[in-house]
Amino acid sequence: MTALCHFAFVRFTREYWALPAADREARLDAWIADLRRSAHAVDVYHVFPAARDADVCVWSSEVADGQDTAARFFAAFQRACAPMRAYAEFADILWGYTKPSPYSSATRSAQALDPFGRERPRYLVVYPFVKTTDWYLKSREERQQIMNGHIRIGKQYPDISQLLLYSVGLQDQEFVPVYAMDSLERFSELVAELRGTEARRFTERDWPLRVGYGPIAGSNRWS
Amino acid sequence: MTALCHFAFVRFTREYWALPAADREARLDAWIADLRRSAHAVDVYHVFPAARDADVCVWSSEVADGQDTAARFFAAFQRACAPMRAYAEFADILWGYTKPSPYSSATRSAQALDPFGRERPRYLVVYPFVKTTDWYLKSREERQQIMNGHIRIGKQYPDISQLLLYSVGLQDQEFVPVYAMDSLERFSELVAELRGTEARRFTERDWPLRVGYGPIAGSNRWS
Amino acid sequence: MTALCHFAFVRFTREYWALPAADREARLDAWIADLRRSAHAVDVYHVFPAARDADVCVWSSEVADGQDTAARFFAAFQRACAPMRAYAEFADILWGYTKPSPYSSATRSAQALDPFGRERPRYLVVYPFVKTTDWYLKSREERQQIMNGHIRIGKQYPDISQLLLYSVGLQDQEFVPVYAMDSLERFSELVAELRGTEARRFTERDWPLRVGYGPIAGSNRWS
Amino acid sequence: MTALCHFAFVRFTREYWALPAADREARLDAWIADLRRSAHAVDVYHVFPAARDADVCVWSSEVADGQDTAARFFAAFQRACAPMRAYAEFADILWGYTKPSPYSSATRSAQALDPFGRERPRYLVVYPFVKTTDWYLKSREERQQIMNGHIRIGKQYPDISQLLLYSVGLQDQEFVPVYAMDSLERFSELVAELRGTEARRFTERDWPLRVGYGPIAGSNRWS
Amino acid sequence: MTALCHFAFVRFTREYWALPAADREARLDAWIADLRRSAHAVDVYHVFPAARDADVCVWSSEVADGQDTAARFFAAFQRACAPMRAYAEFADILWGYTKPSPYSSATRSAQALDPFGRERPRYLVVYPFVKTTDWYLKSREERQQIMNGHIRIGKQYPDISQLLLYSVGLQDQEFVPVYAMDSLERFSELVAELRGTEARRFTERDWPLRVGYGPIAGSNRWS
Repeated sequence: MTALCHFAFVRFTREYWALPAADREARLDAWIADLRRSAHAVDVYHVFPAARDADVCVWSSEVADGQDTAARFFAAFQRACAPMRAYAEFADILWGYTKPSPYSSATRSAQALDPFGRERPRYLVVYPFVKTTDWYLKSREERQQIMNGHIRIGKQYPDISQLLLYSVGLQDQEFVPVYAMDSLERFSELVAELRGTEARRFTERDWPLRVGYGPIAGSNRWS
Repeated sequence: MTALCHFAFVRFTREYWALPAADREARLDAWIADLRRSAHAVDVYHVFPAARDADVCVWSSEVADGQDTAARFFAAFQRACAPMRAYAEFADILWGYTKPSPYSSATRSAQALDPFGRERPRYLVVYPFVKTTDWYLKSREERQQIMNGHIRIGKQYPDISQLLLYSVGLQDQEFVPVYAMDSLERFSELVAELRGTEARRFTERDWPLRVGYGPIAGSNRWS
Repeated sequence: MTALCHFAFVRFTREYWALPAADREARLDAWIADLRRSAHAVDVYHVFPAARDADVCVWSSEVADGQDTAARFFAAFQRACAPMRAYAEFADILWGYTKPSPYSSATRSAQALDPFGRERPRYLVVYPFVKTTDWYLKSREERQQIMNGHIRIGKQYPDISQLLLYSVGLQDQEFVPVYAMDSLERFSELVAELRGTEARRFTERDWPLRVGYGPIAGSNRWS
Repeated sequence: MTALCHFAFVRFTREYWALPAADREARLDAWIADLRRSAHAVDVYHVFPAARDADVCVWSSEVADGQDTAARFFAAFQRACAPMRAYAEFADILWGYTKPSPYSSATRSAQALDPFGRERPRYLVVYPFVKTTDWYLKSREERQQIMNGHIRIGKQYPDISQLLLYSVGLQDQEFVPVYAMDSLERFSELVAELRGTEARRFTERDWPLRVGYGPIAGSNRWS
Repeated sequence: MTALCHFAFVRFTREYWALPAADREARLDAWIADLRRSAHAVDVYHVFPAARDADVCVWSSEVADGQDTAARFFAAFQRACAPMRAYAEFADILWGYTKPSPYSSATRSAQALDPFGRERPRYLVVYPFVKTTDWYLKSREERQQIMNGHIRIGKQYPDISQLLLYSVGLQDQEFVPVYAMDSLERFSELVAELRGTEARRFTERDWPLRVGYGPIAGSNRWS
C-alpha cells in the first residue's frame, strides 16, 4: 500500500503569542481537530526550541489509492488551516510517496516506520535529501554496493525506525528521510557513523534537518 | 502562433486570512474575474499545501502578435491586481515565449500543452530552468544526440503534456518547463527516469519547482 | 562627457496599496515630480509583473562634472524619496559611471543609449554583471579577441541600444549593462545567441535581470 | 557526565523597543527568572552590537541523564519563552551534547569550559561547525595527526577555555565550538594562528560566528 | 595605539518615515548626540541611495587600552541605540581592531586613515573581506611578494586613505577594509586596477560593499 506523507513545519506569529493563553489553546485544539479530519492519520510534534523557525510539525498520512488522492488531501488540509492562517506561517513543507526500496529486499523491515501506526516514539527527525548527479550516472551494481554498507550500519540500530518518501518532480528535494526514536543520542551516533561511509560523497544536500519531540497528545500543553 | 505565457505564484497575507470568509471569497472572485479580462486565457490553480510559499498560481496566456503584446498584457495584469495588492504577495513570477523546439521536428505533438486549451488536467508542475555554460559550448550535433535520449523517455509518458517557455534575457531562468498531468505519481516516475540521463549533467538549476492542483473552476472553494 | 546613472527598483508596500486609488496616484505623481528635480534626467518604467519584487524602476542620470556630483545627487534623491519611504521599499539599486569602452573604438555608436536622450523605447533591461577572476588575468589581446565576437553579434541587432555602467569599487557588481528596445523577442534572440560565445565562460554573475516597460509618461496609470 | 547545551540567540522586536523602559526591564527580568527554572544552569550574555541580528544569547545546560532529557528541557524552555514570544524572535538556535574528545586524551583539561560552572568570563564566542566529506574519509591516524597541530596551538592560550558540542543528526551543523575568554584580542590571535594550519582545509563551514559579552548578572541593564 | 573600530549600517523603518519631519529630525539628532557620548570618536555618513539597505553608517572608534574596552563600548552603544530601536534596523555591523600590517614596514603611512582624525573626506567605502584557505597555506615570502604588487598600486593613489581592521574570530569576515576619498571615480579606477593582480585569486569574499557620503555634520539634513 502506497502512502502520501506530508510534513508541515508551522511557526506561530507574534499575533498568536499576543493572544491570551486560553485563546491560544482553544485555537490550537480546534485546528488540530480539523487537521485530524483532513487525512487518514495525523500526528503533531513540538519543534521549538529544537529548531528556531518552527513551533510544531504536522505529519499527515493518506492512503494513495487513486489519482485524486493528492488533490483531495491538499484541499482538505488547506481548508483545515484557513482559520489559523492569520496566526501561523509555514516554515517548511516536505511531502512525497512511500515506495518499496530498490536497494533492500526486506518486504517489511522491523525498523520500518508505519505512516498509519498508532504508537509514536518520543522524537522525530525529518529533512530533505538530494543526491549528486554522479550518483545517478553510476551503474545499478555500484549503487547497490555503496548502499549495502549504509544499510548494514542502520541495522545495528534496531531502536531507530525509518521511512523514506520519494519526492522527485514534486518538490525540490528528491527524498524525505524520516526517523523516529526514543533516544536522540543514539540517533546522533548512527548519523555520525554514516558520515564516514562512501555514500556520503554522493549527498548533494541534506538540510535543513529538524527534530520534533512530543508528540502532542492531550491539551494544556502550550500554556 | 507564438504565445506569451506568464505564471504568477501568489501568497495571501495574514491580513487576508483575518478577513471574514465571505469577504475573502468575494475579493478572490472579483480578482479572478478581473484577471480573466486581462489576457486571452487565464487559469488559476491551488498551490498550498503542495508548496509552502504560494496559495495560488495564475497562468495567463496571450497571443504574441506584436511588439507591444508584453507591455499591454503587463499593464492589464497590473491593473487587475491593484485591488488585491494589500492582501497578496508574489512569491514568484515566471514568464516567457513559446517557440518551435530546435531538437524535435514534430509539428505539433500530441503531448503539447496548449496555452489556450479549454480542458485542464488536475495537476500542473512549473519551474525555472538554467543550463550550464558547457551545454552551450557543445556542438549542435552533440546537443541533439543528448536531447534524443531525453525526448525518447518523454514519449513513453503520453499521459503527460508539456510546454516550454523561452525566457533568455527576460528573467534569470533560461526556460520555464510546464507539465500537466492527472497523476502525480506518473510524473514523479518520469522525472526519476530522466535523472539518470546524460542531459542531467548540463542542468545548472531547476528549482524552485511547485505543483499546482485544481484547477479552480467555481466558487465556494476557499471557505 | 561622463554620466552617473542610477537605477532604483522600487516596490510599493501593502500600506500603499491599501490607500484609496486617487490618493495613491497623487502621491506617485508628487514623488515623480520631486525625482525629476533631483537629477538632470529621470525616466520611470513599470516593472511588475515582468518581475515580482519591484513595481517601478527609476532611472536617474547626472552629468559627472566634479567630485561632488555623486554626493549632491544622492542627497537630492534621498530628499525626494523621504515622503514616499513609508510606502515604498527599494528592491535593488544599481549605479555606476559611463566610460569609453576599452574594446570598441567607435566614438559614438548608433546603438549607444543616451542617458540624457528625450526618446525612450518601450522596454528596458537592466542587471548587475561580474566577470570571473580568470578574465582579469588574461592578456589584453585575448580579451580583445573574445570581445570582438561579442561585439560582432551585437551589431546584427541595430534596433537594440545599450549603455554600460562601470561600478567596480562602488557596488558589488562590476558593471551594469542597460539595454533598450521596442521588441522583447528580438532582445531574447540576441541574448540566446551570445550564450553560445566563448565570453560566456567568463561571466561570474549576471542576475537579477529585470525588464521595465512603459515608460510612464502621463498620469491615471495606476488606477 | 554528559550535558545537553543549548544556545538561543534572541532578537527583541520593534514592539518590545516601543514599550516604556521600565516595562521592558520587568519583562526581561521575569523571562530570565523563568528561563533559570527551565534548566540546571542558565547564563545570559549580551550580543548586540557585537552582532547585528541578536540582542542576547541564552545558554542553557542540562544534565543528560536519560532519554527524555531533551524533550523535558525543550518543553520547559518553550513554556518559559511563551510570554516573550510576542516581543522576541530567535535569530539562531545551536545545541548538542558534550562528549569526551576522540583526539585528546586529557581527562579534564584546565582549559575545559564547564557547562555548570559558577564563574563566567567576560566574552563568549559560539558558532556552528561543519567538516568536509574528505575529512571523514581520511584514516583515523591522519585525522589524529592533523588535530595534534591544532591542539598544540590551543594549549598556548591557557587563558581561553572551550567546550565542544556534538550536533550530528540533531541540527545542520556537526559541532558547536564554544569559547570563553576575558580578552577578545587574544582570542582573535588564536584563531588567526589556526587559520594557517592544515586542519583549515577540512572546514566546510564555520559561520555565523557571534560574540557575547557580559554576562548579564543583575538588573537595570537595558535602560 | 590599537583602536577598536565599529561600523553600523542602519536602516530606518517605515514607522520612522511615517513620523512628521520635525519629529524625525529631533530623534535623529538626539540619537547622534547619544552615540557621540558612547565612544572616543563617532562619525555618521549617509548611505542611501548609494546602497539600498542602509540609510546611515555610524563609525565608532575606541582606544583599545584594556580587556574590557569592547564590553564597555558595546554596552554604551547599545544604550545609546535603545530609544531608536523601534525606528531602526541594523542592515550590517562590521568591526575589528587596528594592527600594524605584516606586509608593509611604513610606521605610519601618509595614506593611513586615522580612526580619531577630525577631518573626514567626502566618501567612505567599507566591506567585509575573507581570503581563501590557499592564501593562508602559502609561505610568508610568497604572500609578501603578492602583496608588494598590491601595495605598489595603492601608492599611486595618494589621495585615497585607508584603514584595515582585523576581525578573525570576532565576526564572519577576516578583515574590514575602509577607504576614504574625495573622488569616487578615482577610487573605482584603483579597484579596477587591483582586479588584474595576482592577489585577486586569493579573495574568497569582498561583499557587500557600501559607499557612505557626507559626512553628516549639522542638522536640517533629513527634511
